Amino acid sequence: MIRFYNGKVLRFAPAMRVTEDEVWTDGGRICHVGPAPESLPAFERQIDLNGDLLIPGFKNAHTHTAMTFLRSCADDMPLSDWLYKQVFPHEAKLTPEMLYDFTSLGILEYLSSGVTASFDMYFHNDAYAAANIDCGFRTVICSALNNFDRDVENIEREYLKFNALHELVSYRLGIHAEYTTSMERMQYMVSLAHKYREPCFAHLCETKAEVDGCVERYGMTPPQLLDSIGFFDYGGGGFHCVWMSEDDVALFARKKLWAVTNPCSNLKLASGIAPLDELRAAGVPMAIGTDGAASNNALDFFREMYLASVLQKVRRFDAAAGGADAALEMACVGGARAMGLEDCDDIAPGKRADLVVVDLRRPNMQPLHNVPRNLVYAGSKENVRLTMVNGRVLYENGEFFVGVDPAALYARVNAHVREMFG
Amino acid sequence: MIRFYNGKVLRFAPAMRVTEDEVWTDGGRICHVGPAPESLPAFERQIDLNGDLLIPGFKNAHTHTAMTFLRSCADDMPLSDWLYKQVFPHEAKLTPEMLYDFTSLGILEYLSSGVTASFDMYFHNDAYAAANIDCGFRTVICSALNNFDRDVENIEREYLKFNALHELVSYRLGIHAEYTTSMERMQYMVSLAHKYREPCFAHLCETKAEVDGCVERYGMTPPQLLDSIGFFDYGGGGFHCVWMSEDDVALFARKKLWAVTNPCSNLKLASGIAPLDELRAAGVPMAIGTDGAASNNALDFFREMYLASVLQKVRRFDAAAGGADAALEMACVGGARAMGLEDCDDIAPGKRADLVVVDLRRPNMQPLHNVPRNLVYAGSKENVRLTMVNGRVLYENGEFFVGVDPAALYARVNAHVREMFG
Repeated sequence: MIRFYNGKVLRFAPAMRVTEDEVWTDGGRICHVGPAPESLPAFERQIDLNGDLLIPGFKNAHTHTAMTFLRSCADDMPLSDWLYKQVFPHEAKLTPEMLYDFTSLGILEYLSSGVTASFDMYFHNDAYAAANIDCGFRTVICSALNNFDRDVENIEREYLKFNALHELVSYRLGIHAEYTTSMERMQYMVSLAHKYREPCFAHLCETKAEVDGCVERYGMTPPQLLDSIGFFDYGGGGFHCVWMSEDDVALFARKKLWAVTNPCSNLKLASGIAPLDELRAAGVPMAIGTDGAASNNALDFFREMYLASVLQKVRRFDAAAGGADAALEMACVGGARAMGLEDCDDIAPGKRADLVVVDLRRPNMQPLHNVPRNLVYAGSKENVRLTMVNGRVLYENGEFFVGVDPAALYARVNAHVREMFG
Repeated sequence: MIRFYNGKVLRFAPAMRVTEDEVWTDGGRICHVGPAPESLPAFERQIDLNGDLLIPGFKNAHTHTAMTFLRSCADDMPLSDWLYKQVFPHEAKLTPEMLYDFTSLGILEYLSSGVTASFDMYFHNDAYAAANIDCGFRTVICSALNNFDRDVENIEREYLKFNALHELVSYRLGIHAEYTTSMERMQYMVSLAHKYREPCFAHLCETKAEVDGCVERYGMTPPQLLDSIGFFDYGGGGFHCVWMSEDDVALFARKKLWAVTNPCSNLKLASGIAPLDELRAAGVPMAIGTDGAASNNALDFFREMYLASVLQKVRRFDAAAGGADAALEMACVGGARAMGLEDCDDIAPGKRADLVVVDLRRPNMQPLHNVPRNLVYAGSKENVRLTMVNGRVLYENGEFFVGVDPAALYARVNAHVREMFG
């Protein structure tokens, strides 16, 4: 058992609050939250929080982890050049070995940012899952069916395989996007969703061009189209959700579909600012993701949370729009539930021990008027003192404990990149 | 002498580039940039960069450092409530002792963010200057003449006093803003600018309401009005510059006035997104500031630089807008020149030793496709390994060397805040 004591705890259910509880973990789960009893059991380790804050880790609810290899190689250019001249040609050269290393690099970055789980959509899922398991990181793989897949039925095999592989890995259904997937293939995905009674996800309403193209092709917006073929019959949601019509928002609210926002990516690729306040007002459940490093370029959850609030203010010209508490709830709780990780969504007995210690003794966290707002509006990666996934400390005081030597990994990553870029 | 070796160096003049030079400092200045000679002199300290990047420090070209005391106590509320219910009433309770501590807290935050100088506009300038001198930090005070000043002539006394006080402190002329300053007082400021042949600064075009009010009062925008009375006869510029008309941009370009952008503050207070691309295209010199922690809420230069680029992309719906290199130049070079610190604007022999070591061996800085873009688009405070001001290391590996014990300072700051907020 591990004991966290002498600090603050951010708890969510039934309402967000900061308490002075102790938190104990046993194996991969939280076993006690509350005051210390009179006599303490034996602990494997006792962590003195020293006034710092324990929070449920951030959940990165949409990403392409291995895209770290494209960081800073395709910036400040039009979207079409980015996609067709940089992203696609280099992705074609990816090997499973490269992908394993690029994924490991992304996992180190997550840990240093307080992220304890990812909802990932990319290629080479065997190598991807292996990197996560080897690092001890939690991930949910989302299938990305599209017209370039040679073996459509691989999705079902992957669904069965990855959901039985390891407690750190699970798999959910999804298509890449309407504009990259034929109606026949979308209908195949619906048949899988129906067969397994599973929620279904897709890149959705990311750009105006995507929505306009779908309306031209089908006479419906992407959400309306997918709903019309039964895609959302067992729930699910969309990544990005920037260009949502009122009807789209109403659909998401009625079916309780997850809107996963990616504010940094939407800025960098000039996609727009998602209408989060309207989605929230309608009752749509929401989560936050970094998207891949190719379009961000960081995997920095502090930046995403901050922008998930403040961009609403400027979009609506109302300083009261957005809101720190809502952004924090999306980051810690919403993300977990969007990914099907209901037991990672809070600090409470029985929940998974996916925890982060936030250093409040840095100048940016002082004074202590309001700890959650400090975290959202002034927090940065310098405040991540410790990250624990499934009861194991994987990051502490700037060091990684994932069985990977960062210097050796960086050397391999740079060698791969030189090989790919020639 | 101190020697930085075995790493990379970001240099600006005559063009931005990353070199493999060594950098030596002697007292407060850089004395050598280039390869190591065959025989080395004796050094007080040799700092192995280990592949990391040495940059000229970031210059925070508009801030109210002591406003750290209002961090997270006035968020997510309309602008008028923020100003009249939170900022003004609490500012009235500030004592010089409090201001000294709140300023020291801000300086620690700057150092942890790679900021080596600030352009500050606030109250109690004696206490403010003392905190900077005691910490070894560089600052330029800007006067903030407005209708609430009881002793107008204090500006001239301060101008003479602070420009003669200490090598780390200087003083420039400015009014708070047109909307808080009578024509008579603005004209008094012009008389000082003429008398001392000094540039003049002001909060300018921050909100649409400010511009509309000025047009109503005077039939001119704030830049046009100030220019019409001779305010800019010796240069100067504006803070924020969000709502600039084409004529305002042309005026700034013609007179080479500094547009200082504050992207985080402009988002948080819902002021808008400054037209940086248009200003740059017109040839307006630019710099970046954090504004105060009351409206930000961090003093995090990585966040400001990042947004100085990416907000342009979404504002123009063009992924090629903005640009990392321009943002970095504004942060390191532009800020120095806007503040009159021409000898702090680059890494070159004779320049001030205001330097920052950026840790490239963190996952967010890998792979090394493009180091400047990594810095702007993926950098964070976790990457600040060392901050040196005027040849003295004030921050290294998370520790501060400014003669202030952070824990004791935080205790005093929180005690002041309890006293003020009751």
